[in-house]
Order: sequence, then structure tokens, then C-alpha cells
Amino acid sequence: MKIEQHHIQDSNNKNLKTHQDNFDFLSNNLTKKGVNVNTLIKKLQDFQVAIPSWALGAGGTRFGRFSFYGEPSNLEQKIQDIGIIHSLTQTAGAVSLHIPWDIPEDYNAIKELAGSLDIKFDAVNSNTFQDQANAKESYKYGSLSNTSEAVRQQAIQHNLDVINIGNKLGSKSLTVWLADGSCFPGQNNFQTALQNTENSLKDIYKGLPNDWSMLIEYKPYEPNFYSTVIQDWGTSFMLANACGDKAYSLVDLGHHLPNSNIEQIVSILMSKGKLGGFHFNDSKYGDDDLTVGSIKPYALFLIFNELVYGMKNNPQNPDLAWMIDASHNVKDPLEDLIQSLEAIQEAYAKALLIDQDELKSAQLNNDVVKCQEILQDAYRTDVRPLLEKARIENGGALSPINAYRSLDVRNGLIKERGKNTVATGL
Amino acid sequence: MKIEQHHIQDSNNKNLKTHQDNFDFLSNNLTKKGVNVNTLIKKLQDFQVAIPSWALGAGGTRFGRFSFYGEPSNLEQKIQDIGIIHSLTQTAGAVSLHIPWDIPEDYNAIKELAGSLDIKFDAVNSNTFQDQANAKESYKYGSLSNTSEAVRQQAIQHNLDVINIGNKLGSKSLTVWLADGSCFPGQNNFQTALQNTENSLKDIYKGLPNDWSMLIEYKPYEPNFYSTVIQDWGTSFMLANACGDKAYSLVDLGHHLPNSNIEQIVSILMSKGKLGGFHFNDSKYGDDDLTVGSIKPYALFLIFNELVYGMKNNPQNPDLAWMIDASHNVKDPLEDLIQSLEAIQEAYAKALLIDQDELKSAQLNNDVVKCQEILQDAYRTDVRPLLEKARIENGGALSPINAYRSLDVRNGLIKERGKNTVATGL
Amino acid sequence: MKIEQHHIQDSNNKNLKTHQDNFDFLSNNLTKKGVNVNTLIKKLQDFQVAIPSWALGAGGTRFGRFSFYGEPSNLEQKIQDIGIIHSLTQTAGAVSLHIPWDIPEDYNAIKELAGSLDIKFDAVNSNTFQDQANAKESYKYGSLSNTSEAVRQQAIQHNLDVINIGNKLGSKSLTVWLADGSCFPGQNNFQTALQNTENSLKDIYKGLPNDWSMLIEYKPYEPNFYSTVIQDWGTSFMLANACGDKAYSLVDLGHHLPNSNIEQIVSILMSKGKLGGFHFNDSKYGDDDLTVGSIKPYALFLIFNELVYGMKNNPQNPDLAWMIDASHNVKDPLEDLIQSLEAIQEAYAKALLIDQDELKSAQLNNDVVKCQEILQDAYRTDVRPLLEKARIENGGALSPINAYRSLDVRNGLIKERGKNTVATGL
Amino acid sequence: MKIEQHHIQDSNNKNLKTHQDNFDFLSNNLTKKGVNVNTLIKKLQDFQVAIPSWALGAGGTRFGRFSFYGEPSNLEQKIQDIGIIHSLTQTAGAVSLHIPWDIPEDYNAIKELAGSLDIKFDAVNSNTFQDQANAKESYKYGSLSNTSEAVRQQAIQHNLDVINIGNKLGSKSLTVWLADGSCFPGQNNFQTALQNTENSLKDIYKGLPNDWSMLIEYKPYEPNFYSTVIQDWGTSFMLANACGDKAYSLVDLGHHLPNSNIEQIVSILMSKGKLGGFHFNDSKYGDDDLTVGSIKPYALFLIFNELVYGMKNNPQNPDLAWMIDASHNVKDPLEDLIQSLEAIQEAYAKALLIDQDELKSAQLNNDVVKCQEILQDAYRTDVRPLLEKARIENGGALSPINAYRSLDVRNGLIKERGKNTVATGL
Repeated sequence: MKIEQHHIQDSNNKNLKTHQDNFDFLSNNLTKKGVNVNTLIKKLQDFQVAIPSWALGAGGTRFGRFSFYGEPSNLEQKIQDIGIIHSLTQTAGAVSLHIPWDIPEDYNAIKELAGSLDIKFDAVNSNTFQDQANAKESYKYGSLSNTSEAVRQQAIQHNLDVINIGNKLGSKSLTVWLADGSCFPGQNNFQTALQNTENSLKDIYKGLPNDWSMLIEYKPYEPNFYSTVIQDWGTSFMLANACGDKAYSLVDLGHHLPNSNIEQIVSILMSKGKLGGFHFNDSKYGDDDLTVGSIKPYALFLIFNELVYGMKNNPQNPDLAWMIDASHNVKDPLEDLIQSLEAIQEAYAKALLIDQDELKSAQLNNDVVKCQEILQDAYRTDVRPLLEKARIENGGALSPINAYRSLDVRNGLIKERGKNTVATGL
Repeated sequence: MKIEQHHIQDSNNKNLKTHQDNFDFLSNNLTKKGVNVNTLIKKLQDFQVAIPSWALGAGGTRFGRFSFYGEPSNLEQKIQDIGIIHSLTQTAGAVSLHIPWDIPEDYNAIKELAGSLDIKFDAVNSNTFQDQANAKESYKYGSLSNTSEAVRQQAIQHNLDVINIGNKLGSKSLTVWLADGSCFPGQNNFQTALQNTENSLKDIYKGLPNDWSMLIEYKPYEPNFYSTVIQDWGTSFMLANACGDKAYSLVDLGHHLPNSNIEQIVSILMSKGKLGGFHFNDSKYGDDDLTVGSIKPYALFLIFNELVYGMKNNPQNPDLAWMIDASHNVKDPLEDLIQSLEAIQEAYAKALLIDQDELKSAQLNNDVVKCQEILQDAYRTDVRPLLEKARIENGGALSPINAYRSLDVRNGLIKERGKNTVATGL
Repeated sequence: MKIEQHHIQDSNNKNLKTHQDNFDFLSNNLTKKGVNVNTLIKKLQDFQVAIPSWALGAGGTRFGRFSFYGEPSNLEQKIQDIGIIHSLTQTAGAVSLHIPWDIPEDYNAIKELAGSLDIKFDAVNSNTFQDQANAKESYKYGSLSNTSEAVRQQAIQHNLDVINIGNKLGSKSLTVWLADGSCFPGQNNFQTALQNTENSLKDIYKGLPNDWSMLIEYKPYEPNFYSTVIQDWGTSFMLANACGDKAYSLVDLGHHLPNSNIEQIVSILMSKGKLGGFHFNDSKYGDDDLTVGSIKPYALFLIFNELVYGMKNNPQNPDLAWMIDASHNVKDPLEDLIQSLEAIQEAYAKALLIDQDELKSAQLNNDVVKCQEILQDAYRTDVRPLLEKARIENGGALSPINAYRSLDVRNGLIKERGKNTVATGL
Repeated sequence: MKIEQHHIQDSNNKNLKTHQDNFDFLSNNLTKKGVNVNTLIKKLQDFQVAIPSWALGAGGTRFGRFSFYGEPSNLEQKIQDIGIIHSLTQTAGAVSLHIPWDIPEDYNAIKELAGSLDIKFDAVNSNTFQDQANAKESYKYGSLSNTSEAVRQQAIQHNLDVINIGNKLGSKSLTVWLADGSCFPGQNNFQTALQNTENSLKDIYKGLPNDWSMLIEYKPYEPNFYSTVIQDWGTSFMLANACGDKAYSLVDLGHHLPNSNIEQIVSILMSKGKLGGFHFNDSKYGDDDLTVGSIKPYALFLIFNELVYGMKNNPQNPDLAWMIDASHNVKDPLEDLIQSLEAIQEAYAKALLIDQDELKSAQLNNDVVKCQEILQDAYRTDVRPLLEKARIENGGALSPINAYRSLDVRNGLIKERGKNTVATGL
């Protein structure tokens, strides 16, 4: 299933006048304050977020999973789903593959399909947190950190294979998320586990093409519940430094202890030129993988404030790999992703409204009240007309959610695929 | 020092046209969506928040305190400060006294002063967490929960005295916040401590005038670091039920464990007719007492969603005692309070925009995506023109912060009071 | 597979002398301090903990599951596994069934088997957090709290069916754990959800036999990640009161927000006669379901201090339903359960060593240092000889783990059952 | 006041026989298991912990302070207090000075006094979190990170002065704890604040004598409640690397976010040769500064497990600066310190009992159950007889708390100093 341009435009038509009024009014106000609205819209249009191939079906918890109808059951269908989202939002122009769940059978066909939908291949993700059928070694007690060399070698080779697959598709980065750790005190020797991990990462790094990056994710707990080998940004940063210039840290918003100041971490990593990628989601308790911006939108805005600052002032960082990493337990996965993309663009737009010179000046004067006023002035602005404009200029929908519903996309998918399909990897 | 009406109007004049344009545009949009803008503005105007008498000077931490210039050094000056805030915001029409820090010397004079500034006397607060000079008994090991009857009696009598003072001023409620608890396992017998507290509260309750309420605050920790006698809403609720119909729970936003869902607590207390008061502030880690809305504005909005719902659907609750309970360590206290008041009004206005019928209908259909869209549509609306309108109709400032600064209020206060005054209780 | 008495005794023999020396030395010391060692041992022997029928196989996380060899694949085998544990520890004399995973096919045969192993049927557990094949209604959006009456009725009826099943086996209590809640703000109307839950529980309560209890579990989050309907003890307590005298709260150690003072909750529930059951496990981050005592053994001791106090001073509580509720992701499930049972007995024994009169006296004197000394003196005592004595007097093993290994139980089970069996419900 | 040796011995006499029996029995058991008891006792005796000069009086919270009778009111008296603790425990052979609270007036006299009590001068602590009378610049908005160069210079110079003072006394390390940070989003530019801090630390480092270390403490929040410049070990580690070989991280047990795995941090820092010092205390919620071992003794044991491992396997670390950093709000400060010292020695002794070879072997076999058994076997051992032996061999008390009380030390101090003295800095 594919959404035709004219369907989107039809769905836009009836609200176009309202949009234009709102946009003109806001644009006028912002221009008076010195904002270059066109530049801002261009930046929003350039901001593309990858959709991971595992996010197109319903997720679940250890207590069970309630599937959604019409889920994609192969990689082609997954890319088609992303195509739908991208045609509506004009923000989802990339896919991030999870290997081995989504190994292409026919590389050319897949590349052609993605190309036809204007979708690039972003970071590829390895999986050493589950045992695959026919695998010789088990990851039950760890992969890159395992005390057994045979297990480590299998995990290293898997990552090299993933690079190889990604290379054929045009990916330029490998994301390594390790579930390795321990459930009980004493189970692991922390020093050995870290040393093994460092050595393994270096072996993978050796196989990295010159124009690739390696992104090292961190997470404090889960699936291991006592310790994780790469538990925090400090460890990820240390490992990235040990590997070399093409290794970076990757921040996933849900991978922090309660009350963490994530925006500060983002800022410090950027100042050191070591932020390589970003996984968006939201959470109230742990790695809840909820829709981006659904719980703490102001925190997301503060993070984007640091990202905007860093993208301008810290050129030593690479182009960041942006990805949504959420789970869709009670929503239509495509609607959930549309809401996430909207929240990301909103936070980005608001962060772009901050007058960085004025802020710096207030900071120099220790005018704390003014600093807050500046941030809140940007945050309180209703930027939705800007997002709409950015989208429709590129052929997207004024309201992607409304268009998705009025075009009855989900029923179209069910008709095509049947009700009880299950996405691979779930 | 007092701000004259015409000074405020002068400061408003130059931005009045911009305001009117913004208001008209927003009002028009909202009206089209079915919002009765006048009703909404009336509700904002009726929403008055008490300023506690201890919040007009700089706060501090156990590591020290950096004082602010021109602090009020007696109750009259504190009320004058609130008068300044109220004249600018038209939202701070009440004071909440802390006894013994602010016992009036001349009741009539104080009442007259407050009346002239349009300030009412809201809940009075007792203090049994510090020893007063000349006090016979010490609260080091607790007050209403103490194992010593003499200490409990002293604390009960103090609360009765506070009621008496409040009564002379027109207050209608007593807020009891207990610091009681323990720093170490074994220090307290939990059951005895709770039973003593219940008995003490009942004794205070007996002395409560018929038209008064008793508000029982809860807090999980600090200043005691192992246990608190009234640790959570469940305990507060149990005690309020034990005391009687005039006893209620009081929610302070900072008094919860990490990740608590406060809006749910608010909702449940309202459904049971047992929410009596509310202390506003914001926090990232614990009882940080930061400016309202400065850290988690969306959570504040969700709480107001429950308050709005409850104020409409749960008439069994009393009129709530609203108060700001923040500490001002690095800002001018008056500016901090102005920012807090603005954030409260903003959250309230946004919550009022939620179409409760549409929400209920989406909930019945388990349309989770729609539920979120409804909340976010309200939240993403820039309601500042509504707040401005509500203020200026009542004689307040378009922008209270800007007016406060352009009128050079702080320097006026310093001129009147001198630089190095210290507010009582700090 | 069944362990024969003489095998256990053989395995005990070689360490019997060492045990006796240790026991004599400790017993002598304790007697000098006024402890009645025989009474204490009798209490340890009487303390029996139920094993849930889902805990005999490997657990997992949402990221995957690594199965264990020789898992029981039907109810008979599960009860045999418990029989093995009980014969070694003499502490696991009960099973807690999970319905529908473990509905007996032949009630008499199952009762006979359990009886032959000295195993009672403790609380039965209903399951409304997963959809069953052929179920008419789905629990995706809640069960007892669902906005749809048909769903609520199905869930109520399921609970009544569970009571019926339990009744045939001799169970005397029903444990209700609800996964109900919401993943996103706005998804649920908190008041409606709670009211529906209360009504549904009352309907179940009506079907409760006179000599049964209903145990209402609470949990702050997971599988729902924004709110849970029965989020904390306060809500559980309120619901138990609404249902009636036979309804109680059930405390699961892992179901609390970070930093919660669980021992205080236990104490308050007991003082109000409303503690009905207890689920043991341990955790560092959330509901990690780790081996009891593996992370915070001192907290477990403090909880037992309150339990011991309450069992003596609060006779209004029923006999508590004790159960282990852990998940076994990286250990042999039977070994994990043995370690949990040992940790429970250890904490209980240490709590029994506390001189409650001395403690009360130190509390009255506010001698905080002494209070701590009293608790720590008990906690620092090595009570293992007492546990050994309690076990071997009843025919158990000196060291259940060592006996389990030296008797090569797991290989016996694999031989009987095959390697790749999977326990129902996992 | 000074405790005479013969008084301690008198107090020991009546329990000496019991001690000897207990010691012999334990020693015999441990020897059978292959433990060299003499070596272990020697290690306990060598383990000396510094007492900070601010810890001899009652602490407090922002809500108030309840003073203790007989507090030391000058440095001499503080050192005498430490002398008392050391004579009883034989574990507190060092003092850690806080400047400017405790600048010696007569260096030689102070050195002589300390020497006579067998007390060394450990790390010196600077204070840039409070303004000193007559200070030209204020630290309200930060010290080493301040945007104003004048403020930074003042803070740098203060640290150099502290080094100078320490140098005269024989100290060999400087501890830098920064309160710097921000209370509100936007207040600080994270990158600038960190860069300023790095530059300032480098300037201090230049003034460090060759045989000194600089210890960089981290803390996530408080007194600033939105961000701290040196928020976590990662930042501290990065700064230490930037400064040079003599700069190290310092771990304070209370300075972590909820649920942090501190033992892993300790382990990683040691493996990188960058752990320089350690502040002991305990906590349930935040930086509660409670008695060591009073809340989470097992976590303390796990930390010591890593320390013991690191002290053996990571010779690249310096001799660690051990210090107690607790606050004494409801206990006699000296008794509190005695309890802390006991808990430290206990955790150390238990960690020394772990058979590291056996543990490593179980880890290599992924025998998780065995790993736990090994740790718990050590932890469950009652090591008090070893601590007693270590103490009395060196002239200390069998039970320091009992001796302190039977010798009526507090009343002696009150007699000498008067009741209402107040320790400097409180």
C-alpha cells in the first residue's frame, strides 16, 4: 500500500485556509522578533528521523503482547509502512535495520523500493541479546563481554556481518547495544567484563569501513537487573575513546537512572565531539519506550536546546543518527510513530526559536529569571503552523494523524495483509 | 512601597496593541472550536493563590544561604511584598501565615493593611519542626508523634494557638505539616508514632471552629531521612478520615517519591472528597522547591486537568487552599513568585481548554491516540494572550515581570528597607 | 522424581559434627542473652512459604528468554519440583496455583500427589493480564477496570472460576493482581477506572466463601507505564475496606517506587488489621523479581522485624499468605528458590532475635544509638546454625543447595523429562 | 579530655573471656576454611579512616538544627574528640581539615597535639560553597565554574591557600568538592561551566606539590537542584584525566542518583587507576549523610569487595584517602562516628573473607548460584570477634560504644566545655 500525493493534497485542502492564517500570524510575530522563518522551516524539513524496522508492529512486555491488525510480516512491508509515514510527515526519510530480524533477501529490490519511497538506510543494529536458531554459542551470560572467547568471537563476527549487510545498502553506521551485564552481585567480575567488551569493540572497529561510525549505546539496567557492562555515558565515552575517532556514544532517552539530567549529558558529549546518535522515546519509570514527548515534553525541548547549540558550536561531531526507539503496546504503531515525529519536530522548532545570544548574555549576567523567561518564551510558542508549513511544502499532510485516519490506512493494510500477521522480531 | 495603578497602565500601554491582536486571533480560533473565552477568562481571574509569609526572602540549603537585598523584615513588609505581586499579577490575593515567625502584633492594623491591598488570609501554618526560644520541650525527636506526652501536649497547644491567631484574621483553615519521623531503622515504633499522631490530630481537630478545615500534609522524607510519620497520601487520607469531615489531605507537589504519578493521587483524593489544599512548586530530585512549572510543566498541566475535572465533578470537596511553597535561592523572590503564578495560570488555562466530553468519548472507545491528541492540542496552545487579558481587565500588568523590572521595584524596596535586611524565619 | 529421606541424611552426615559444634556454640551464646532457642527453632519450622506454580521454569524479559533444561511441563511435574525443594528445605510446604496456566485435570490425583509431598494449596491467583485463546473479550485496555461492561464481567467471572478451582483443592484465599492501568496521560479516567475496579472487586467478593480471604495486590507500574489502577498500598487499603472484612492488602516487595520505606507500609497495614499476604523477591531497579535477599538483605530483615512485631501485637490480621514471587532468568529455578527460602528464614530468625522490650525502652528514651545497636546486634549474628537445626530436625538437608547438587537433581529431572521442555505460562 | 589506656582496659576486662571464646571459635572455623586470620587482623588494624573536622558537632537540615551538648568549639577540641574516638576504636587515626572553618592558629601546637593522639593529617578540604565574611566575590552563582574570572580566581587562590595550610601539617591531598551548578534550565551554559571548571582545576593542579594528589568529588544535585557541574563519575574522571597523573576521582557514597550501582563505579575507577579517595556514609533517599552501614550494609560490603579486589589487582591507584562524611542530626556525634567506624571495619572484614580464586572460578563457569553463595557465605559470617581482636591488640576497646558510655565521656566533655558550645562551621 502506498499513499498517493493527490490523496494527501485532497485531505489538506479543507484546512489550508486556516493553516495559512495561522502561519501568517505566527510568522509575522516571529519575524518581528527577529526570527528568520524561512531558515527555520528549511531546518525542520532537513531534519529526518529513522524508523527502526522493529517498530512497525505492536510491542509488548514480559507479561504479554496484544497484537495489532495488519502488521507487516516482512522487510518489504516494513519499508512500505515507513513510506506511508514518510509521505504524510515528510520527516521519516530513513530506516534503521535490525539484524538478524530483517536481513534483505534481494538487496537490489530492497534498495529500489526504499529509493522509490525516498527512504535512506541509516544505522544498522546488531543483536546479541537473543539466541538465534542454529547459533553455536548462547548469549545467556553475555556476548562481547562473555568470559568465553568462543562466545565473544561469535558476537564480534555477527557485528562484522551486520556491517557487511549495511554496507550493501548504503548505511554508514553500526549501532551496538549490549544487553550484557549481570543479575546478581558477584556474577560478573566488572573489570574483566569491561575489558572483554573493550577488546571486542576494538575488533569490530577494525572491520569498520573508513566512512562509517560505530555508535556505542549505554543503559543502566534491563534485561540484566543488577549491573550492565556499559551502564552510563561515562563508560560509553571511555570505550569510544579507546576504539578511535570513528567511535561515538549513542544516547537513548530511556536509558538513564531516575532524575538524570540528560540534556547535560548530551551537552558534554557534544562538547567533546563524541555524540554520534540519538534514540528518541519517552518514559515515566524506566525504559518504558513510550511515544516521544508524551510524558516529559519540556525535557525533550531542553535536550533539543543542547542539540541545536551543539550542532552549531561543536562541528567536531558527526551528523547525528536520529532514530525513534519506542514500543507500541496500546496504539496503532503507525499512529504512534506519527505522534512521535510530531513531538520531535515540535521540540526542535521551539529550540530553534531560542535567541542564543540573548541567552548567553543573560547567563553572563547571572540573570536566572531572564534565562528562564527566554527558554519559556520559546517553549510556550505554539509552533504547529511552522511544522505544517514545513510538511506541506514538501508534499506532506497538514495533519498526518487526521490524514492517516481519513485515508483509512490501517484498513487498507489489513485488507492487503490480513488481520493476524506478526512482524518479525516480536 | 506600593505600586500605583497608573504606573502599571503606563507600562502596559506600549504593548497593548500587540496584546489585543494576539488575543483577538486566539480568541477567534478558540471560539470556532467551541470554547467560551469569556467564561474561561473569568475562571482565571477567580483563581487566587496564597503566598506564604516565609517566601518573600531568599531561601537556602543546609550548605548555606545567599541573602537577597531589600528583604522584608516584618509582617507588614511581607504583606506589602505580596501586595506588589498581587497588583501586577492579580492572582496573589491571599497570604498564608507561618506561626510563630509571623505573629501579628496589631491584628487590626494588619487586617487593614491586607484589606487595602485586596489580600485575604488563607490557611495558617503551624511549626513544630524547630525549637522556639524559651520552649519547654524540644521537637528533636518529634512533636505530635513524640513518645513523651508533654511534648505532644506542647505541640497540640501550639496548633490550637495558631488556630486562634488565624481566627482573628479571618483564616478558615489550618495546615499541619509534620517533620516527625526517624533517621534510623528502629528509632521509631511505626505503630506507636502513627497512633500518637492520630490522637494528637484529633485533639487539635476538637479545637477547630465549625467553618474551618484542617489540612494534613504528607511527605516521604526530609528532614528525617529514614521514615516520616505521615509519609504518603494513604496515611494522610487515613488520618483525615479518622479526624472527621473537616479534615482533608493536602498535596505538596514536591513531597513524593521519584516517578510518582501525582495527578492520579489528586484525582483519587478528589473522588473521595478529601482534597483540601495544594502547595505548588517544582522539582527534579526531591523537595527542591523550585519555581512552579520550571522543570515539569506538562505534569503540572496533567494535574490541573484532574483539578478542573474534580472541581466540576466532585462537589464534595471544599474550596481548595492554593498556595505556592517554593524557595528562592538564586532569584529575586518576588520575580520567582511572579514566574510561579504565571506557570500556574498557564497550566490552569490549558486544562480548561480540554474538551472533557470529547476526551471521555475517546476514553470509552479506547482511542488512546485520540486521548493524547486532545490533551496535547490543549497543551500546545499558546494561552498567554488569555492570561494577559485576565490580568489587565483587573488592573494588572500585561507582563508582570517586565513591569516589575521597568518600575524598578527591587531598588525601591532596597531604598526603603536597606540592603541587608533578613526576613524572619530564614 | 522424588528425593528419598535417606539420601538427604547421607548427604548431611559428613557435616553433622561441624553443624552440631556451631549450633551448640551459638545456642549457648543466645541462651546466655535470654533467647529461648527451642521456641525460636519451632517458629522457623512453622514458617512455610508457598511456591507459585509459574516459578519452576526459567523466566525471561521482554528482550527474550533463555530456557533451562528439564523444566516441568505440567502441573504434576511442578508439584514434584516443589516436593523436591520442600524435602530439602522443609520450608516450602505449599503451592500457589496460577489459573489458567495450571488448572488441574484430575483434582483428586493432584490433591493426593500434593498431600504425599506434604504440600498444601495456598492462595490461588487469577490472570486477567493476558488474553486466553478463545476468550471473547480482550484485556488489552484493562479487565476489572475496563470501560466495557462485557470485559469486566468476563474478568469477574474468571475470578469466580478461580475461587471455585481453589475451593476444590483446599485453598483459602484468592490473590487479585491487576495489570490494569494506562500507558499514556488521558488514556484512562482515573476516577472511572477506580470506581469500576471497586465495583468489580465487590462482585468477586460476593462469591468468596466465608472462610476465604481476598488479597488485593498493588503495583505502581508495568506492564502499564503511565498509571496503574491499584498503584499503591493506599489504594489497595481503600479497596479492601470497601469490600469488607475478608479483603486485605497484599504486599509484593518489588512493587514500589524507588526508595519506598516498605517496612513502614507493612507496619501500618498490620496495625489496621489489613495485611493479608506477602510476595517475596528482591530488586535493585523495579519489579526485577530477583532472588530474595540477594540485593537488600537488611531491608528484608527490617521488614521481618515489623512482621514479627505485628504477628505478636496485631492479632486482628489473618494468617498471612507467604509466597515467593521471583523470576529465574540466569539460575536453575530450583536452586534460586532454595536460595530465596534460605534468605527468608535467615531474615526471620534474625528478627526473632531482637529483644522487643529492650527496643521499646530505647525508643522511649530516644536513645537512637541504642535502637540501632539492638537491631544490628541481631542482624550481625550468624544464624545459619539455627536454620540448619530447624531443617534437619524435620528431615531436611543441612545445606539444601549442596544436597541438591550432590544428589544431581537437575540431571535426574532432565533424564526424566528431556532437555527442552517448557513450563506452561512461560 | 583524654581517655587513659587503663580505663579502656578496665572496661574491657569483664568481657575479655567471652571475647576470647568467640574469637577462638571463629578463628578456628576460618582457619579450617583456609583463611589466614592473623593477616586479616593486621589488615583491619592498618585500615585507618579520617574524621573530618566538621563532623564532631551536631549537623542539621535546612529546616533547622538541634545542637548537642559539649560540642568542640575550636580545632584543638575537635582533635581531642577524634583522639577519644581513636583511642576506643583504633581506626580513626586521621583528621581531614575543612578550610576556612578550621585554620590552625598555631601549627606546631596542633601538630604536636595530633601526634600525641596518634592522628595524622589526611586530605584537606576547600570550601567554595559559602561566602566568607570579607570575601570580595560571592559564590552564589558558582566558584571554579563561574562566568566571572574574578570569582574563579578567588576560588582558585582559596584552593592554593588550602594546599599551603595542608602542607604545613603533613597532608598529602586536596579534596575539591564543588557545589557549582544551576537551579533552573538555561541558567548555566553546560559547556562553558565545564570548560571553566577544567581550566580552574588545572590552575590549582599547577600549585600541587609533587607528592600530593588532587581528589575531584562528584555529586548529581544539592545544593543546586537542576544541574551540578561535576555531576557524576564520568565527568570527574574526564577532569582528572585532563589535569594529570596526580588527579583522581573521589567517591562519596551519598552522591549518586537513585538505584546507582556504586560498586561498579568503584571497580571501573580502580581498573583505570583513577580512584583517589572515598567518603563513607549511608542514605535512603539522597545525600542523607546517615551513619555508615545503617541503611544498606550489603551494598557497603559489595563496595568493599571491589575495593579489596582493586587494592590487590590495581596497583596503579594511590593509597586511598578514606574519610567518614556523615551528619549527626539525632545522635551524639561521637557515638555516631563510632558506629560508622564499626560498620566500615565489618564490611572490610567480610570482604576480606571472600575467596577470590573460588569466586573467579565460579564466574568463569557462569555458576551464578555459586557466585552468590560465596559472597553470602562471607557476608553472613559474624566477624565481630575479629574486629574486637584487632582493636584490643592495639589498645582499643572491646566495645567502643559501651566503653564510651561507661566512661561517661559526653558528660566529661560537657563538664569541660559547657553545654551550649557550637562547633565551627555548623
